[in-house]
Amino acid sequence: MRTRAEYIERLGKMNHNLFFNGEKIDRLDERQQGALNVMGLTFDAVWDPASKDLCTATSHITGETINRFNHIHQNAEDLHKKQDMTRMLVNKVGQCIQRCMGIDAANAIHAVSYEAQKSPKAKTAYHDNWLKWLERFQREDLVASCAQTDVKGERLKRPAEQIDPDMYVHVVEERNDGIVVRGCKVHISEASISDEILVVPNRALQKGEEAYALAFAVPSDYEGVKQVVHFHNYRKRDTYERGIEYGYTDSYVIFDDCFIPWERVFLCGEIRHGGIAASLFALFHRHSYSGCKPAMLDYVIGLAALAAEINGIEKTPHVRNMLSELIMTGELGYAAGYTASALGQPQVYMPGMGLVPYGPGSYIPNSIYANVGRCLTGEAVFHEQEILCNIAGGMPATFPYEKDLTNPETKALLEKYLNRNPKIPIEEQIKFWLNFIDFGLSGSTGSVQYGSYHGGGSPIMEQIAITSQYDLESKKDIVRAIAGMEPRAK
Amino acid sequence: MRTRAEYIERLGKMNHNLFFNGEKIDRLDERQQGALNVMGLTFDAVWDPASKDLCTATSHITGETINRFNHIHQNAEDLHKKQDMTRMLVNKVGQCIQRCMGIDAANAIHAVSYEAQKSPKAKTAYHDNWLKWLERFQREDLVASCAQTDVKGERLKRPAEQIDPDMYVHVVEERNDGIVVRGCKVHISEASISDEILVVPNRALQKGEEAYALAFAVPSDYEGVKQVVHFHNYRKRDTYERGIEYGYTDSYVIFDDCFIPWERVFLCGEIRHGGIAASLFALFHRHSYSGCKPAMLDYVIGLAALAAEINGIEKTPHVRNMLSELIMTGELGYAAGYTASALGQPQVYMPGMGLVPYGPGSYIPNSIYANVGRCLTGEAVFHEQEILCNIAGGMPATFPYEKDLTNPETKALLEKYLNRNPKIPIEEQIKFWLNFIDFGLSGSTGSVQYGSYHGGGSPIMEQIAITSQYDLESKKDIVRAIAGMEPRAK
Amino acid sequence: MRTRAEYIERLGKMNHNLFFNGEKIDRLDERQQGALNVMGLTFDAVWDPASKDLCTATSHITGETINRFNHIHQNAEDLHKKQDMTRMLVNKVGQCIQRCMGIDAANAIHAVSYEAQKSPKAKTAYHDNWLKWLERFQREDLVASCAQTDVKGERLKRPAEQIDPDMYVHVVEERNDGIVVRGCKVHISEASISDEILVVPNRALQKGEEAYALAFAVPSDYEGVKQVVHFHNYRKRDTYERGIEYGYTDSYVIFDDCFIPWERVFLCGEIRHGGIAASLFALFHRHSYSGCKPAMLDYVIGLAALAAEINGIEKTPHVRNMLSELIMTGELGYAAGYTASALGQPQVYMPGMGLVPYGPGSYIPNSIYANVGRCLTGEAVFHEQEILCNIAGGMPATFPYEKDLTNPETKALLEKYLNRNPKIPIEEQIKFWLNFIDFGLSGSTGSVQYGSYHGGGSPIMEQIAITSQYDLESKKDIVRAIAGMEPRAK
Amino acid sequence: MRTRAEYIERLGKMNHNLFFNGEKIDRLDERQQGALNVMGLTFDAVWDPASKDLCTATSHITGETINRFNHIHQNAEDLHKKQDMTRMLVNKVGQCIQRCMGIDAANAIHAVSYEAQKSPKAKTAYHDNWLKWLERFQREDLVASCAQTDVKGERLKRPAEQIDPDMYVHVVEERNDGIVVRGCKVHISEASISDEILVVPNRALQKGEEAYALAFAVPSDYEGVKQVVHFHNYRKRDTYERGIEYGYTDSYVIFDDCFIPWERVFLCGEIRHGGIAASLFALFHRHSYSGCKPAMLDYVIGLAALAAEINGIEKTPHVRNMLSELIMTGELGYAAGYTASALGQPQVYMPGMGLVPYGPGSYIPNSIYANVGRCLTGEAVFHEQEILCNIAGGMPATFPYEKDLTNPETKALLEKYLNRNPKIPIEEQIKFWLNFIDFGLSGSTGSVQYGSYHGGGSPIMEQIAITSQYDLESKKDIVRAIAGMEPRAK
Repeated sequence: MRTRAEYIERLGKMNHNLFFNGEKIDRLDERQQGALNVMGLTFDAVWDPASKDLCTATSHITGETINRFNHIHQNAEDLHKKQDMTRMLVNKVGQCIQRCMGIDAANAIHAVSYEAQKSPKAKTAYHDNWLKWLERFQREDLVASCAQTDVKGERLKRPAEQIDPDMYVHVVEERNDGIVVRGCKVHISEASISDEILVVPNRALQKGEEAYALAFAVPSDYEGVKQVVHFHNYRKRDTYERGIEYGYTDSYVIFDDCFIPWERVFLCGEIRHGGIAASLFALFHRHSYSGCKPAMLDYVIGLAALAAEINGIEKTPHVRNMLSELIMTGELGYAAGYTASALGQPQVYMPGMGLVPYGPGSYIPNSIYANVGRCLTGEAVFHEQEILCNIAGGMPATFPYEKDLTNPETKALLEKYLNRNPKIPIEEQIKFWLNFIDFGLSGSTGSVQYGSYHGGGSPIMEQIAITSQYDLESKKDIVRAIAGMEPRAK
Repeated sequence: MRTRAEYIERLGKMNHNLFFNGEKIDRLDERQQGALNVMGLTFDAVWDPASKDLCTATSHITGETINRFNHIHQNAEDLHKKQDMTRMLVNKVGQCIQRCMGIDAANAIHAVSYEAQKSPKAKTAYHDNWLKWLERFQREDLVASCAQTDVKGERLKRPAEQIDPDMYVHVVEERNDGIVVRGCKVHISEASISDEILVVPNRALQKGEEAYALAFAVPSDYEGVKQVVHFHNYRKRDTYERGIEYGYTDSYVIFDDCFIPWERVFLCGEIRHGGIAASLFALFHRHSYSGCKPAMLDYVIGLAALAAEINGIEKTPHVRNMLSELIMTGELGYAAGYTASALGQPQVYMPGMGLVPYGPGSYIPNSIYANVGRCLTGEAVFHEQEILCNIAGGMPATFPYEKDLTNPETKALLEKYLNRNPKIPIEEQIKFWLNFIDFGLSGSTGSVQYGSYHGGGSPIMEQIAITSQYDLESKKDIVRAIAGMEPRAK
Repeated sequence: MRTRAEYIERLGKMNHNLFFNGEKIDRLDERQQGALNVMGLTFDAVWDPASKDLCTATSHITGETINRFNHIHQNAEDLHKKQDMTRMLVNKVGQCIQRCMGIDAANAIHAVSYEAQKSPKAKTAYHDNWLKWLERFQREDLVASCAQTDVKGERLKRPAEQIDPDMYVHVVEERNDGIVVRGCKVHISEASISDEILVVPNRALQKGEEAYALAFAVPSDYEGVKQVVHFHNYRKRDTYERGIEYGYTDSYVIFDDCFIPWERVFLCGEIRHGGIAASLFALFHRHSYSGCKPAMLDYVIGLAALAAEINGIEKTPHVRNMLSELIMTGELGYAAGYTASALGQPQVYMPGMGLVPYGPGSYIPNSIYANVGRCLTGEAVFHEQEILCNIAGGMPATFPYEKDLTNPETKALLEKYLNRNPKIPIEEQIKFWLNFIDFGLSGSTGSVQYGSYHGGGSPIMEQIAITSQYDLESKKDIVRAIAGMEPRAK
Repeated sequence: MRTRAEYIERLGKMNHNLFFNGEKIDRLDERQQGALNVMGLTFDAVWDPASKDLCTATSHITGETINRFNHIHQNAEDLHKKQDMTRMLVNKVGQCIQRCMGIDAANAIHAVSYEAQKSPKAKTAYHDNWLKWLERFQREDLVASCAQTDVKGERLKRPAEQIDPDMYVHVVEERNDGIVVRGCKVHISEASISDEILVVPNRALQKGEEAYALAFAVPSDYEGVKQVVHFHNYRKRDTYERGIEYGYTDSYVIFDDCFIPWERVFLCGEIRHGGIAASLFALFHRHSYSGCKPAMLDYVIGLAALAAEINGIEKTPHVRNMLSELIMTGELGYAAGYTASALGQPQVYMPGMGLVPYGPGSYIPNSIYANVGRCLTGEAVFHEQEILCNIAGGMPATFPYEKDLTNPETKALLEKYLNRNPKIPIEEQIKFWLNFIDFGLSGSTGSVQYGSYHGGGSPIMEQIAITSQYDLESKKDIVRAIAGMEPRAK
């Protein structure tokens, strides 16, 4: 297992394919530091005795101790631990811990490549390729991001119906030694600070869309890969320093006729498995949200409770009521993930067939519970901001700038008039509000909200998953029996 | 274990202390039949091979096989099974299965009497008394209701502040051989069809309220006990018969200077344990709701899905959206209960002390998860009706009467004009709508809603439980660390 | 103008075409009394000096003073007065005043018949026929109900696509002297207590659906008309009498090959005007809701405030908060109607053309404001019940029966234990709760809710009206200008 | 009436009392330009023939034509015009037009100073002073901001209970020639670009709080006044230029023992009128929101509709549904303001007395309607962002930077992959999304939301106004009559 320093060192040696606001930048550019700080926590955790047990696992292929973020879930306990590891680490930074994309994509591809390799028309030994890649991934303790979201062009048209066929990543040429792919994946978190990028399809596919049924891996600085990067950092502070400097990044990952050798291809043409790859990554990722969204709620609850304390209204009924709403959202989200873990099985839902065994025995969380949890916490995002706004009052919207707070002409006056709670030193109150502004009123706020709402699938996607997979007919049977109607014809 | 018939036979022999609309009635009165039919299912279940395993348990005091409704939870598995048994049985009748009051009160008193007996001022050997009562309760397979809700008089005043001290049940006299109690418990489900009534306090108590810290058992036809009964039945149908005739009842249980011998007293004067008895029954009961509310949702989902199917709109996006809302509520409620079971421990939350061991080792569900689940499903009650109304359209509000549907002058015309789906026989459609009306537009609908909303504690009670028990300070710590604030002074 | 007695006397002479639960009944049957009591208020009002001005108008065709319910709106003031008259009368009975169907249909047909008569293919002099009918309607002070809602069969199919063509009322034969119509209109409020029934189409129509573009009037006991009646009454009370005995009724109005002479036909075949007739009646009726829904809210606010007062919690913040929600819904609904009146014009919205002059100059409320108001108040219905449930607590769900409250064995005990507020006599408290139960927990509750939700068009219908009529392009222009985009191509 | 240029020129001559991030800055500093651009629109409007009628008025004191923002409302028509002028001007910039503070404060002080001058203990001729100030204000066409919100210190304590008595602005010394005031007003919009600042109390006052019952005017660069300024501007764009560069500013206005001569004092010590001044400014300002919030909604609707159009989903039912929600909020808000104008009277609500005549005859909007409208639109703020997020999808959260869009290495690729609608030029799509980001995902977004939520009074303040002023007893009377209860004792 690597250290934070080893991880960063390796990134420093990579090719320059990051574009930022008209420049080409290095992976150790200062604007990457916030994100690197966060990812670094996932390396620190395995060396910290307090978190080592939770954050490591035993590889089922090598028997070695590995970072849990590179592990394939072997049982329900592994699912529980992923959820709890995620919540614990997110609690250290109050935002996305950034490494779950890799574990979620790896677990999806692990099962899909296994099933697809059985296909008589398989283009290569998908699962064998995969196991080779996985073994190195675990051994070298790499960071993978997952590229799923296509740009999608006209949104009511399917991939093959688009005027421009490149609106979904697809194979444009098949060669003896590999394939050439073209297209662009967007909103790819941590792609600029990852070692590898795992690519999976974005949606269910049908006949004629074989070129889009595609899963593979590339190094993130690979030839033919261009990343247009977005940063979400906070302005440094001179006086009122944060406890941790954090940020995040995401990329447009453009495959500009990029050549992929067969040994890095895990799926190529099997439309049914392509659709499962899409939904299985989403499922694992929604399960990750059952750790990260409760942790985000922990942070929001802390912000709300401290704001209320500073404002001297922590005990008022309407504040208690809002705190209980936040707690409910977080803990229902956690409970949904917990239940999804406990009821996990090596099986997937297939339309018309229900739950069927799938993959080599690795564990998959229960889809209904993973989806209801993600949907609940996704839909709550903006209402959480409303609660914070309600409790905080207007103060954060017009808070003085840092240098007004230190300017001798204004410092004493501002400290006098900002003070709302004689029991809390004014410096602490100021640090709190500056942090509150970072979360709720900064240039990163909107992006975080959009990510929390749409990431892992917008609420509407979870609703579709829920209603299409739920056994509605058995619920009708309950009514039929009580109403004295005829039993369902079987 | 008894049969349905044995249960009913015993009720037939009881004293007449039921008042209904000015009359005194027998326990086998025809208006009791609906409720008896439902309670009967809990007896049938232990003789049915399909449900026997789920619905029986091994008594931890006698080692005998007993009805699970009379069992003291020995481990998390017992909690899981109670939840699942409840959901399964409620699914047979689409409403409250009515026997959980007994198991929930028994589990609360089991722990409380154990702790209270240790008190140096204990008036009698509470737990020894309890074990004797419990042994008979299990052996004779009795049905117990639980009387908790006091009339409460002026609602912003505490028990001892009321003008009339009888607004909460209390001891009015202590004798050598027992105590005399006075007061009235309201909304007591199934009291008129139960063998025994377990009485517990209604709230946290403080010094000066010792007379209200009271738990005991009485036969439900006991001298000094008067029940004023309310029935919630459906009009019988002549042609379009239901699959099951069901109903329920509740009572004002009046203790009119009722004498209770010491051997039936399980708590008398220990205010701290009185408060715990109140909250512990509520906790067990909210956990029961994690079985019954998902089952009620199963029923509502079935109603909504069938209404949509008959209306030919099952596939429209707005209907799918509403179905997903119902599913989310039900399964989040289930997941909360599941997690509360899995994280159950023999411990309770005490203000200022956090979770502490409590009772003789019997299992208590996690309070936070039990409360967030109950609150979610409680608050959803009226919105569920809105969804049903939205999907059904106006038809149920003006549906023809049964005899118009059979009158030769109108039958053919009505069947012609009621038909909305050529794939479903019109008789089936009619039966469905009549059943829909039973649930959503009958004289029982309001009472069911009020019970679902307030039963086991109104949403506001769960919110208070949640915010008072949640570890808010640890959430503030997360913010303090990220904001660079001083750590909390310990 | 007639008196209540004259109105009832005339009904007593009508033919027997009402079917109720297998019988044929008289229009003065006791089950009709509740509804007659309510309708009677609209006759009393014109003789009461306090309401005479508001409830009468000057006929624009005869110059006579007429009941305002039979008036064609001549200006914005008439629209204001209809709204205020409705609110005032609904406040007398706490529910639908039942006579707005007639005024709303009359105003719609007044404009539509005028425009349709201009059609070169007009089958008869629609508007001349109408004016003749209207003159008698005003002179004889008749009550009209409006039959709009068809049974609709398979709901995703248009009228002409149905397997059974009778799913929407239509012409089955055209004769020299008139037309023969067939079909069934459902949920027709007050049809069994009305003198006349006005029939209008249910939806927008297209080519091939000419037979459904139909408006006419029939006496409500006409040959070929059968009514299957539904009653929504309350059980009489022996001791705790109501201030008014009220109820309502609705009918399945079946046109069983009913012959309509040309002079009673106001539209027959003009599909565009058929669609306008449908939407115009809906518009007038949604405007009526801006009087009746605020009045219903007045009643709900009164119930909530009295429940809170009896429970002693009228001043608690959460109750104030809920009261403010109710007030907001009612007064926003009123304001929407007020603005719709003030901005009323003799014009209608036509797809692709916007607002265009329509009809002979009679006033039509602004459609956007009428729709936003109706939608708001329609969607609030179930939440209002939740608020009442929240404030009332469980008491109404298990309230004792009237005879238990008077039985000497239980009266004193029940009065002792029901008492929650020493400042309010217990008899008053009892009367209040019985009335509360009438509204929220009786066999009529569901029907009232369904009517409030779907009547005048379900919320989804208003949403469709709003988005299809709103000038979205002008809103995009605002963005275009600020964003520096090109102006819209005109 | 002045021009934009004259307005700006005057500001350039003012003393330097603006503090920004440690510096003292000039009023024509570049960071003030965005706000000046917006305020300039209010000057342009009176010279533009298209808006001149709406934006000017005839002074009731001089008979001269004046900018309507400096007018005292003489009738309901004036109130209607203020609402419509506000909506029209906000539509030009998509945000706060910034000059309503002055008109709202002036109208409040106009009435309050009139009544307070009658007080036998009046310290000076309040209304005479006021009229002199007002005459110059109108003649010189000045811009006034209004300073109401005090810092408030410990929020559950009243002004006189605070440890530091300066938490609310108050008189610290009374002299022959005037008064010395101390304290700090926060969130004072446009104070740094205004000519004058009007100061009014922040809350209802009681005996012992006379020093806080204070209204006066100061030039905004007055001796003893320090402003700590906050800017909300957008980064300039190089290529994709906006249609207008806009921004806004607000100040901490600190009165550091500032001397106010009597002739600028309009209230000093009359606690009852102090409370009315507070609530009357709030009322006029909430009425202004009935123009500005619908206009903001117009902008949001435009953003949502264009995002949907670009995404090709403008016709999908769920998008129509969300558009209808936005329209409903905006138009209900407008209708509430319209009704508040139409029912305006020269009267205010006084606790215990109801509506009573107040002031010299100038018009005051109806308080209930002004409050229900403001509350509705205030509570909707965060949900509006959710709707925009839902319709837009993730694109705005990770949108490329401007220079990536013009960098030859990435321009073509990005334009290819950003394109979602072949009917709209890609440059237009880009400009749209950049504008969308300004509104919903920039560093100003949070502040705008907080302002929309809390400005003019948080929703809870409107709820308190609503329930305390609404005639609840008359609603109870409706219930009493129907329930057969005793009439209310009068």
